[in-house]
Order: sequence, then structure tokens, then C-alpha cells
Amino acid sequence: MSLVFRSVDLDSKGALQVHEVESGVAPPPEGTLRWIDLSGENAALLDELRQRFDFHPLAIEDCRQFDQRPKLEEYRDHLFLVTQGFTSPGERVSELTLHELHAFLGKNYLVTVHTDELPAVEDAWRRVTQSSAALERGVDFVYYMIASRMVDADFPILDRITDELEGLEDRILEAPVKDDLSRIFELKRHLVMMRKVLSPQRDTMAMLSRRGDSRISERTSLYFRDVHDSLVRINESIEANRDLLGNALDAYLSTVSNRTNEIMKYLTLLSAVFLPLAFIVGFFGQNFDNLPGLPGWVHSDSLMRVMIVLCVLTPIGMTTWFKLRRWI
Amino acid sequence: MSLVFRSVDLDSKGALQVHEVESGVAPPPEGTLRWIDLSGENAALLDELRQRFDFHPLAIEDCRQFDQRPKLEEYRDHLFLVTQGFTSPGERVSELTLHELHAFLGKNYLVTVHTDELPAVEDAWRRVTQSSAALERGVDFVYYMIASRMVDADFPILDRITDELEGLEDRILEAPVKDDLSRIFELKRHLVMMRKVLSPQRDTMAMLSRRGDSRISERTSLYFRDVHDSLVRINESIEANRDLLGNALDAYLSTVSNRTNEIMKYLTLLSAVFLPLAFIVGFFGQNFDNLPGLPGWVHSDSLMRVMIVLCVLTPIGMTTWFKLRRWI
Amino acid sequence: MSLVFRSVDLDSKGALQVHEVESGVAPPPEGTLRWIDLSGENAALLDELRQRFDFHPLAIEDCRQFDQRPKLEEYRDHLFLVTQGFTSPGERVSELTLHELHAFLGKNYLVTVHTDELPAVEDAWRRVTQSSAALERGVDFVYYMIASRMVDADFPILDRITDELEGLEDRILEAPVKDDLSRIFELKRHLVMMRKVLSPQRDTMAMLSRRGDSRISERTSLYFRDVHDSLVRINESIEANRDLLGNALDAYLSTVSNRTNEIMKYLTLLSAVFLPLAFIVGFFGQNFDNLPGLPGWVHSDSLMRVMIVLCVLTPIGMTTWFKLRRWI
Amino acid sequence: MSLVFRSVDLDSKGALQVHEVESGVAPPPEGTLRWIDLSGENAALLDELRQRFDFHPLAIEDCRQFDQRPKLEEYRDHLFLVTQGFTSPGERVSELTLHELHAFLGKNYLVTVHTDELPAVEDAWRRVTQSSAALERGVDFVYYMIASRMVDADFPILDRITDELEGLEDRILEAPVKDDLSRIFELKRHLVMMRKVLSPQRDTMAMLSRRGDSRISERTSLYFRDVHDSLVRINESIEANRDLLGNALDAYLSTVSNRTNEIMKYLTLLSAVFLPLAFIVGFFGQNFDNLPGLPGWVHSDSLMRVMIVLCVLTPIGMTTWFKLRRWI
Amino acid sequence: MSLVFRSVDLDSKGALQVHEVESGVAPPPEGTLRWIDLSGENAALLDELRQRFDFHPLAIEDCRQFDQRPKLEEYRDHLFLVTQGFTSPGERVSELTLHELHAFLGKNYLVTVHTDELPAVEDAWRRVTQSSAALERGVDFVYYMIASRMVDADFPILDRITDELEGLEDRILEAPVKDDLSRIFELKRHLVMMRKVLSPQRDTMAMLSRRGDSRISERTSLYFRDVHDSLVRINESIEANRDLLGNALDAYLSTVSNRTNEIMKYLTLLSAVFLPLAFIVGFFGQNFDNLPGLPGWVHSDSLMRVMIVLCVLTPIGMTTWFKLRRWI
Repeated sequence: MSLVFRSVDLDSKGALQVHEVESGVAPPPEGTLRWIDLSGENAALLDELRQRFDFHPLAIEDCRQFDQRPKLEEYRDHLFLVTQGFTSPGERVSELTLHELHAFLGKNYLVTVHTDELPAVEDAWRRVTQSSAALERGVDFVYYMIASRMVDADFPILDRITDELEGLEDRILEAPVKDDLSRIFELKRHLVMMRKVLSPQRDTMAMLSRRGDSRISERTSLYFRDVHDSLVRINESIEANRDLLGNALDAYLSTVSNRTNEIMKYLTLLSAVFLPLAFIVGFFGQNFDNLPGLPGWVHSDSLMRVMIVLCVLTPIGMTTWFKLRRWI
Repeated sequence: MSLVFRSVDLDSKGALQVHEVESGVAPPPEGTLRWIDLSGENAALLDELRQRFDFHPLAIEDCRQFDQRPKLEEYRDHLFLVTQGFTSPGERVSELTLHELHAFLGKNYLVTVHTDELPAVEDAWRRVTQSSAALERGVDFVYYMIASRMVDADFPILDRITDELEGLEDRILEAPVKDDLSRIFELKRHLVMMRKVLSPQRDTMAMLSRRGDSRISERTSLYFRDVHDSLVRINESIEANRDLLGNALDAYLSTVSNRTNEIMKYLTLLSAVFLPLAFIVGFFGQNFDNLPGLPGWVHSDSLMRVMIVLCVLTPIGMTTWFKLRRWI
Repeated sequence: MSLVFRSVDLDSKGALQVHEVESGVAPPPEGTLRWIDLSGENAALLDELRQRFDFHPLAIEDCRQFDQRPKLEEYRDHLFLVTQGFTSPGERVSELTLHELHAFLGKNYLVTVHTDELPAVEDAWRRVTQSSAALERGVDFVYYMIASRMVDADFPILDRITDELEGLEDRILEAPVKDDLSRIFELKRHLVMMRKVLSPQRDTMAMLSRRGDSRISERTSLYFRDVHDSLVRINESIEANRDLLGNALDAYLSTVSNRTNEIMKYLTLLSAVFLPLAFIVGFFGQNFDNLPGLPGWVHSDSLMRVMIVLCVLTPIGMTTWFKLRRWI
Repeated sequence: MSLVFRSVDLDSKGALQVHEVESGVAPPPEGTLRWIDLSGENAALLDELRQRFDFHPLAIEDCRQFDQRPKLEEYRDHLFLVTQGFTSPGERVSELTLHELHAFLGKNYLVTVHTDELPAVEDAWRRVTQSSAALERGVDFVYYMIASRMVDADFPILDRITDELEGLEDRILEAPVKDDLSRIFELKRHLVMMRKVLSPQRDTMAMLSRRGDSRISERTSLYFRDVHDSLVRINESIEANRDLLGNALDAYLSTVSNRTNEIMKYLTLLSAVFLPLAFIVGFFGQNFDNLPGLPGWVHSDSLMRVMIVLCVLTPIGMTTWFKLRRWI
Repeated sequence: MSLVFRSVDLDSKGALQVHEVESGVAPPPEGTLRWIDLSGENAALLDELRQRFDFHPLAIEDCRQFDQRPKLEEYRDHLFLVTQGFTSPGERVSELTLHELHAFLGKNYLVTVHTDELPAVEDAWRRVTQSSAALERGVDFVYYMIASRMVDADFPILDRITDELEGLEDRILEAPVKDDLSRIFELKRHLVMMRKVLSPQRDTMAMLSRRGDSRISERTSLYFRDVHDSLVRINESIEANRDLLGNALDAYLSTVSNRTNEIMKYLTLLSAVFLPLAFIVGFFGQNFDNLPGLPGWVHSDSLMRVMIVLCVLTPIGMTTWFKLRRWI
């Protein structure tokens, strides 16, 4: 995607100013609140940012690499925040997209850096540029709006996974197919990935809601507590889903083992009926083979009748014995 | 269900006043204790509440969504509490109903919000409106009465699950059927859900029993300690039930695997007896087939006797060998 | 059992006084140490206790229900303690009996409440009433004597379980029987129950050994530390036994799976020997059936010899091949 | 390898001095920063170090044994640090090499001790000796450069394992082979080893980033926080990989069990078709064997037709019944 | 073993005095350091100890029972320490011997009590009685020498287990035998036992290394930190070994299940080849049995050729189909 560089200012008189060109990136003057949003990759701009804002080299270095984990780092003048969230299109959760936002939060500025277009940022941008109300609540509140949207997007994913898992378990107990197995492992991979990201995300929000930091107003920290609360619920939901996933796998294994048992019983029943019959016809056959007076089975001699009776009684006896032992 | 809006006041002279109409929702005057109960959904009333009581927008927003987790949020003037509990009708725990209550607890008022009729709230309402004794102990004590009833309703559910699990395990070891498997997974889902709800519930009660908060009198905090204690027992019981459930699943799997083993032994015994017999009658049959002088088996020649002896000895030998190897 | 109500006093002059009748239950005068023991259920007495001693209603309510968990609750004038322990008669741990003792521990009094006769209480009663030495060490020491005896009774149970488990594992690896399986699950239930009780018991003892409470003398707290130490050992032993139990179950499953494998190998060997033989005698039989000059197998023609040689070589070849593949 | 002993000084005038010979090992004079690097084993030098620097005997003893765990020990004058990391050549992670570095960090000196050549040390040596900029930031920063390089080398190993695991799981679900099993266990051994080392490594870095120690400047502690952050990510990645490994093993077991089930179904189908057929031809064969007028099957009598019809219908009936029961 | 009672003194003039007879057991005079070592059981001596040293009755009671867990109990005048360690003779870890040492550590005395001869104590005794250097470092250092030796003896045991486990796993994947299974469970029992003992041992050493206790000099506490560090490594090694053990068990189960699968495939192949063949020869046999002109198979009629062709094609077709489905 093409690079986007834009900023919005709220000066001390309450006037909003939006810049969408690559002009000078600089900290706002005293009394002005400024949100700078960088999307796409631009090494030169990052360097400029570092010099003008005096950001720490380590934080800038992190900004160049988009595969961090959620974290909150405190520097003298600013907080450096990495926020992550997931989206997954479609009804079935088959592919997770990880969104990552880097942010520098100072007293009167917020600098957000991301590589691809984030719906959460677009949303906040619309609200901030439409009216001065949002920015008036402070740059920390703008960051809250973005983080909150990113976190909320995780709920529907987990709900869809929960729904699918409950159906999956029932279907497996009914009739397991091999695709269920790959689906189970695919979902487990998704949950492993979500937990890896959202568990530290919860911790950074806890820090933001707790702190007596000068960059987070007391009023906004209540909002971060709310985001933290959502993340606690999300993490509990991930754990509960892992439990359900374990159930689904156990269900699969038990059902396969059950079916093996069932088919084995049938095989044994078959053998129990036909192996003795084969012996009976083989044994009697060789003795009566050339017996005279054998035009058809209805007129056969008494030994032939014995054999036929045995051929009838053996299967009955075997199945009865199976029933008694409760094997079938 | 239709909307119910009602309030009960205890003024400084000890007089009870009950209002069941949609009149002005407002904080009580100094010296008066007021409990306001809202059931059903009414967005307008919530807005009114927010304005009159100056409740935090985040708390009001939570009140509009009934799928929270138990929590305790502290605001300047009030506590916001989400309490949850379960009921399950019938002898067999087949369906869990989750009850959720939202409450604002101030110094001299309690506002409870819920969507469906809660037995715990009805109970407390009866006790509060019948005599002034209950409300005299403070609005925190009224909240205790409700929360305590909601928590106590969880015990019989867990006891019934424990009882069923012990019976289930024995029955599975005796003769496992497929329904046992789905029952195990159903109960596990119930326990996953209960733990998800009742584990944070325990933590909120711990906070209520511990705090030197001005909204919770020291006397009432002893009562919350008691509820917390119940929740600790409930959570321990959930864990113990999960252990028993694991036992039941292990029992199912071991028993199926046992039965497969048993039936396999029988199949092998069958084959061990009849496969050699089939060979014997096949081998000898072709040699003696057309031998003269074979009117019946009692007068057969000596080789025929050899065959019959083999047909008798082989099964005996095979089963003896099986017994020696302790396979049967 | 019939109700027993008794008390023993040690007055300031060191004189012991024992009362075994239902006289007035009251706190002792200053300078006198009093132990009151209630066994059996008596609602009226509990009410009297509550009024005279000013016990908290919640504690009294707990005393009416004997299915609590071990706990320590601190009230202004006294501690309320629930202590639990197990006994199991016989050599084999087949049934666990849970003993429960409720106690109110004040500065100069100890009130113990229980429904059935507890050996630990009887023991302490004997020691206290025989000489004034025990009571002279304080009512907290009397409680220690009882609690210590109850805890010590758990050791032999766990030792017996450990011993049985080690034997069980060996026996299962040798030859698993179905009863082993139910025994494993029975022992696991016992351990689940013991852990549920003895883990909180450990925590209450830790609190008693730690506290600078006025009701526990520093001298006696050393003794509670000893009980706590015992409970830590007991809980570690429970965990170790759970590990051993997991071993026993794994051993069972592996051995069954092993035996299935072994019997399957035998079945396959049988089939590998006799299925080809059946084909051979079937194939040759139909060709040579009516060949002239076949009085007995010793004089058979050369093709017959071929068949017999095949009937001998096939089993030898099959078993050799099996041996080479290390299946048998 | 041959012994290397070298040191680099930065004196108060900013001049760099490099010594590569075995000259006197001593603490630097005030105002000079000195890094001494010892590779290879030399007991005498260690003794000299101990005397000149007054290192603790326990730390020196640790330096003689290269199989420590990562740790940070504080002594009066210096910190003693053990740092560990892994490298693994090739695309496939088949062999892990553990690198271990021992370091004494004083106010103005850093002494590093290692047995084999470490790329991280060589790198830092190059940077330090090329320009005085690195050493000017302090000896703690030099240690950071080494530790950071060692930690960063762990990432590609874990990434390669993750990649392999995801492919492995899919391949196993497709068609498991026995080598997959040994590969799973090999990777698990690697992860067990990495966790054993990198989990304490994370803790030592946390200590370095937290401390108000005089030997770590505040500026450098930010860098150690960054290394700590990397180690947290690495440890999370190890856990996630363990989860994926569990998946792969479960996939293997389920697939094998699935295939056994599938092959068993086929065996049973075979038996269900051919065992009845064998009985049919055996039964009818003995009756019609010598019937006159049997030149070919097309002109056979009606009973022969019955048999042939049975021989056709039986397999059809059996497979139909199997399909109905959804076994095939 | 016979009772040994001995003591060694270091008086204020630096003179060593060794007593090996049962003389008066008493605390040393001011300025003298004394180590008293008791081995074997002697109730009278323990009583004497208790009176002369004023040891706590609970500590003395513990000394009479040698089946404690590692612990550190603080009394007014002394510490009571229980230390445990393992030895195992031979190359293969088949039997673990638990060594237990009880020690009273005062300001200027150390009393050690044990039932059997401990190598660690003998070692320390030799060093202490040979030169006054060891005792000059204080009685706490003497205790360190003993404890350190006992802990170090655990390393080779764990290393041998690790080595065996890695070999075991490979061997199991190659060809599992039943003894491997019992060996796995035996090793697991060992590890369960070691963890039960060495995990609390680690905690007591942590306490000794941390405390500002007057009985442990600051200098010696560094040494206890070293022992603690060893115990942390030992406990990590136990956990890693448990993981490897889990691997070995999983490997066993997977391999057995694999082999069952493999043998089942072979059985099914056998059946797939010979069951159809049996039908073919049975079917054709009854039709061509008495056909004229059948002197040998080479001159048989065309139907006979059909049968022979079928007998050749069927096995080829079956195995081909198996190969296509990748069953063999």
C-alpha cells in the first residue's frame, strides 16, 4: 500500500487542523494536542521522528520490525506501546489476521505507526477529525479509542470458535470424519496464537489502568480498566475454548476407539458363526460325499439332517452366547 | 417479560415506603436508605439513572449488555457490581441457566438491574418490604442478601453433578454405553462454564470482604467473607468434579480398550480352534474321499480315526496353551 | 449418639473442676480457663452459647451444619475454627470417614462442637482432666492437642495408600485385572477428597503459627507450626500419591494395549499359517481327488508329495518371516 | 582451541589500547575502562584474576565448570553473570549447541570467560576495538552487546521449529510415518533443553533491567529491558511450540488409530463377504458334487442356480448393510 | 551400627580438641566453637542434649523420628535443620538411598544427629579435625560443608537418569520391550521421590542464604546461596527429566500402537489374498471335481485355466489395491 502520513492538531483555542501531506513532523507547541498517524513503511520519516521527538533508539528500532509482542515501555518523555489484535473474515474462522499498532504517547501528542490500514485507526481518525470533542478528552483517550476497537474485534472470533466447537463435538460423537481432526488442530493453532498475543495485551492494559502516570489522566484510566476487563474475559474465553477443544479431541479419539470396538465385535461374531459352519460342512462333507441315494437335500439321510441341524443351531448358539456376555 | 420498576425507602424515622410505578428515579435524601430495582430492559430509564445518580457511562453501557463477567468496579461515588449465579431445574443437571445481576452500591442507595426475574431478588424484596429490619442494616446488607442467595443456589447443582459422576463412573466400569460419553462431555461443558463464572465471582467477594471501603460497613464485610468462603468451597468442588470427570473419561476409555482386548482374545481363540480344524478336514478329506467301505463314521478306517482324534485334540491343545499364557 | 455436654475449669488457684451435666454454659470468670465440649446436636444449647458468649450468628449457623471446609475466622473476641481429619479402619483403605470439629477459641475459653465422638477430643479430655498440667499451658494448647491428633491420623492412611499403589503398579504390569481399574479410580476419589479437605487445613494452621494474635501464645504458635509442617508433608504425600496413581493407570492402559498387540500377533501368525494351508489343500484337492492308485498318503504320487512339502514349508516360511520382522 | 587472552582499555583521555598477550591481568586504574576477555581454559590465569581482582572463590570455582545455569550473583565489588544461548547450524534444527559465557562486571571493568569461541564476543570485540564509541558507553554496555547477540541467536531456531512443526502436523494428518514420531520427540527434547536454559536467563535480565545498581547505568538498564523483552517473547514462543508439539503427537496418535480403524473395517468387510461364501460353496458343494449332467455351469440344475444367486447376493447384502450402519 | 558420639572444639586460642567418648554433652564456653556429632540412636543422649542445650521438645521429638522432610525451624537460641539427600550405587539408578541429617545450629555450636554413617559428615569431620582452618570460619560453615556435599551427591544420579532416558527413548522407538515399561515407571517413582525431598530442601537453603540471622554470618550466607543455586538446578533437572520420561512413555505407547497397526495391515493383506482364493477353489472345485480327462493340471480344460488365472490375479489385484490406498 502507498504510504500515508497525516496529522491532526487541536490548538488551545479548540480549532482542528488536519494535514495529509508529508510536511515537517514535529512535537506540537505547548497547549496544542497533536495526533500523527503513519502507515506504510518509511525509514526516513522514522529517523526524522526520532530526532524531532527525541524518541529512544530502541523504540524506533522496534517500529521498524512489525512482529513484536504487546508491550508498554516507559521512557522519560513518552510511553511506547505495542498493541495487537485479530480479525478474521467469513463465518468460519479459517485464517487469522494479526494487526499491530505501535504508538508513542506523550503529554500532548500521540504518534501511531502501522504498516497496513487498520480499521480501528480509520474509525478513530473519522471521529477525531469530525469534531473536536474526541481530541478534547486528551491524546490518551484517542489511543483508548483505537485500542478498544482492536480488542473488541477479538470477541466475535472467539464466539464463532465456541459455537463451532460445540457443534463439532456433537457431530464427532455422532460420526467422526477425518476433516474434523484437522479442524480441531487448526482451531488449536489459532487459540495458541491468540493466547500468545492477548495474554501480554491484557497485562499492558492493566498497567495503563493502574498507573498514576502523568501521560494518562485519571479519567481515561477508567476506560483502560474497561479494556483490561474485556481482555480478561477474552483470555478466560480462550482458556474455556481450549477446554472445549480438548473435549472435541477426546470425543474424536473415544468415538474412533468405540467404532473399532464395535466393528471388532461384528468381525468376531461373523467368525464365530462361519468358522464352525465351515468346519461342520467340511467334516460331514467328506464322509457323506458319495453316499448313495442323495438326489436332493429334502430326501437326505439322517446324518445329513444332523449336519443341517448343526448348521442352524451353531449360529443361534453363538449369537446367544454373545448376547449373554453383553458383547452385542 | 414486562418491565418492572420499583423502589423501597427507609427514611430516618424508620418508616418504609414502597413505590411500584415509574416515577422519578433519584438518589435518596440524606438519612434515607433507598433500594431501586429495575427488571426488564428500558434504555430510557438507564439514561435517567445515569443523569440523576451521575453513574459512569462505562457502567451504564455494561448495564445494557447482559453477558458480562462477575466484577467489582470502584467509582468515586459508588461501586458497580456484576454478580452471576446458576440455577438448573430437574434432578439431572441438563441445562444451566445463568442469572446476572448488575448493581450500583452507594452510601445510602442500592440500584439493581436485571433482565429476567431473579428468585434471589424477589426473596430479598419480600424480606425488605415486610419489615424495616433488613434495610436498617444498610443497603450493603441488602446486596449481601441477594448475592448470598445467588451463590447458595450453586451448591445443589454441584452436589447433583458429584452424585451423578460417582454413579456414572461405576456404571461405565460395569458396561459403558455411548450415551455415557456424551454425558461426560456435557457435564464437562457445564463445569467449564461454571468455573469461568464462579472463579471471578470469588475474587469480587474477596474484595468486598477485605476492603476498608466506606460503602461496606465492617459488620457487613463479615457477611461477605462468608459468601467468599462459600465461593471458595464451590470452586474447590468444581475442581474436584473435574477430577472425577477425568476419572469417568479414563474409565470409559480403559473399559472400551479392555473390551476390545477381551473380544480380540475370543476371536483369536475361535481362529486358533477352527483354522487348524479346517486344515485337518481339508487335508484328510481329499485323501479318504473316495475310499471304499465308508458307510458311516463309526466303521471308518484307522486313518479316519486319526483325523477325528486330531479334530478333538487340537481345540483342547489350543485352549490349554491359551490358558497357560493366561490369555483367557 | 446421645448428647454429651461437659466442661472443665482450671481456676486461678490451679484447681480442676469437671462438670458433665447440662448446667449453665457461660464464659469463665477472669483468671479461670474453661474448656466446654459439646457433642451431639442440640439447637437450644447453641442458642444459649451464642447469647452468653456473644458469638457471631454466622459462626453459630456454621455450627449447625457439619459439612464445612477447614477454616479460621477471626471475630472480635474469639477465633472460629473448623478442623477436619480422616480415619479409615482396616488394612485396606476402602472407606474414608471425615471427622469435623468446630471450635471457638477465646482468651480463656475453648468451646468445641462436634456431632459424633472424636478420638482426638476424647484423648485430650483424658489428658486435661487427669492433671492440670495440660490446661495450665492455655486453652490454645488444648486446641493444639486436639488438632494435632486429628492431623496425625491422616499419615497412616496415606502410607497405606502409597504401599498399596506400589504393589498395585507391579501387579498390573504383571497381569492386569479389571478390579485393578476400579481400585485405581476408588483411590483417586479418596485422594481428591483428602486434598479438598487437607489443603485448606494446611492454610489455617499456617495462619495459627504465624499470627501475633492475642489468643495464641507465642509458645503455642511453635506447636501449630509443627502441625502445619505435618500438613505440608501430608499434602506433598497426596501429590506424590496422585503421581503414583497416574503411573498405575498408565501401566494398566499400556499393559492392556500391549496384550492386545501380543494376541494380535498370535492371531496373525495363526492366519498366516493356516490360510495358505487351506488354499493349498483346497487347490490340490480338487485336482487329485479322484486320481487312481491312492490307497494311503505314503504311496501317493509325486504331486501329492509336492503338496505335502508345501504344507510343511509354508508354516516354516511364515514363522521365519515373522521372526525376521521381529513380530514374534 | 588455543588459549586467547586479550584486553582493551579506554583511558580517561579517550585512547584505546589493545593487548593480546598474556601480560599482567589487573583491575584498571581509576578513570580507565577495561574489558578483559579469556577464552580457552587456563587455571593459573583464573587464580591470578582471583587475587588481583579479589573475586569470590565461589565465582572463580564456577568459572572452572562450564555447565552452569544462567544466573546473576551480586558480590560487594562486582556482579558475577552466567549467560547462555543456543546456535544451530543448517536449515533443520537437528543439533543444538549451547554457548556459555561467564562475566565479572565491576564499575570500570568487564572480565569475560569462555571455553570456545563465541560469535557474540567476537562481534563485540570488533566493535569495541574499532572505535572508542562503544566502550565510552560503559563496560555494562559492552556486556549488553554480547548478551543481546547471544539472545537474538535463539529466535531463528524457534522460528524454524515453528515452521517445521506446522508442516509436520499437516504431513502427519496426511500420512504418518515412523520418522515423524522420532522427530517429534527430538524436537521436544530440544524445547525442554531450551526452556531449562532460557527461563532463568529471562529472570537474570529482568534483574539487570530493574536494579538501581551502581554497576548498571540507568541508560544501559533500558537496553537490558529490551533483552528481557526478547527473552519473554522467546519463552512464550517455546511454550507455544510445546503446544504445537502436543498437537503433532496427538495428530500422530489419532491418525494411526484412525488407520487401524479403517483397515479393520476393510478386514471385516472382507470376512463378511468371503466367510459366508465359503460356507455356501462348502454346503452346496457336498450335495451336488456327483450330480449327473453337469458338463458346465451354464447348464446346471436349479439348485446350482440357487447357489450362484446366493454367491452373488450375499456380498451385495453384506456391503449394503455395512453402508447402512455407516461403517464404510 | 554402633553408636558414635564425638565432639570437636576450637577454643579461643585456636587449639583443636577432639573427644570420641561419651562424656558430658554441653554447650561450649564463650569463645569456643564446638561441633558435636551423634550417630546411631540413643534416647538418653537426646534427653541430655535437650536439658543442657535447652532445645525445644518438638525439635528433640523430630530427632527421634528419621522420616522428616527438609525444613528449617527457628527457635530463640538456635536453628533446627533437617537436611536430606540421595545416593545411589552402581551405574544404573535402581535403588535410591535417602540420607537424613538433623542439626542444631547455635552461635558457637553445631549438633548433628543421624542414624547411619553419612559420607558428607565423615568428610567434614576429617577436614575439621585435620586443621583448625575449617572451624575458624564458624560452625555455620561446617554445616555448609556437610549440606553442600549432600546436595552435590544428587547431581550424578540425575545425570545418569537423563543419560539412560535418552537412550531408552531411542531404544523404545526402535523396538519396545515390556521391561522398558517397568523401567519407565521405576524411574518415575524415583523422580517423584526426589522432587518430594529436594523441592523443600531448596526452600530451606533459600532461607539460609537470605537471612540476616545472627547464627549465619554474611560471609557464609554467600555459600548457602551457592547451595541454593545447585538445588534450583537440581529441581529444574528433575522437571526436565519428568518431561523426558513423559516422552519415553508416549514413545512406548505410540510404538505399540504403531506395531498393532502394522501387524493388522499384514493380517488384512493375508485375508485379502487367501479368503478370495479359498472361495475360488471352493467354487470351481465343486464343478470340475469329477470332470473326465483330468490327468494333470497342465492338460486341464479351459475353465480350469480360468480358475488358475483367477488364483494368480486375485492376490496381485489385492496387493495393488492396498498399495494404491497406501496401506502397505
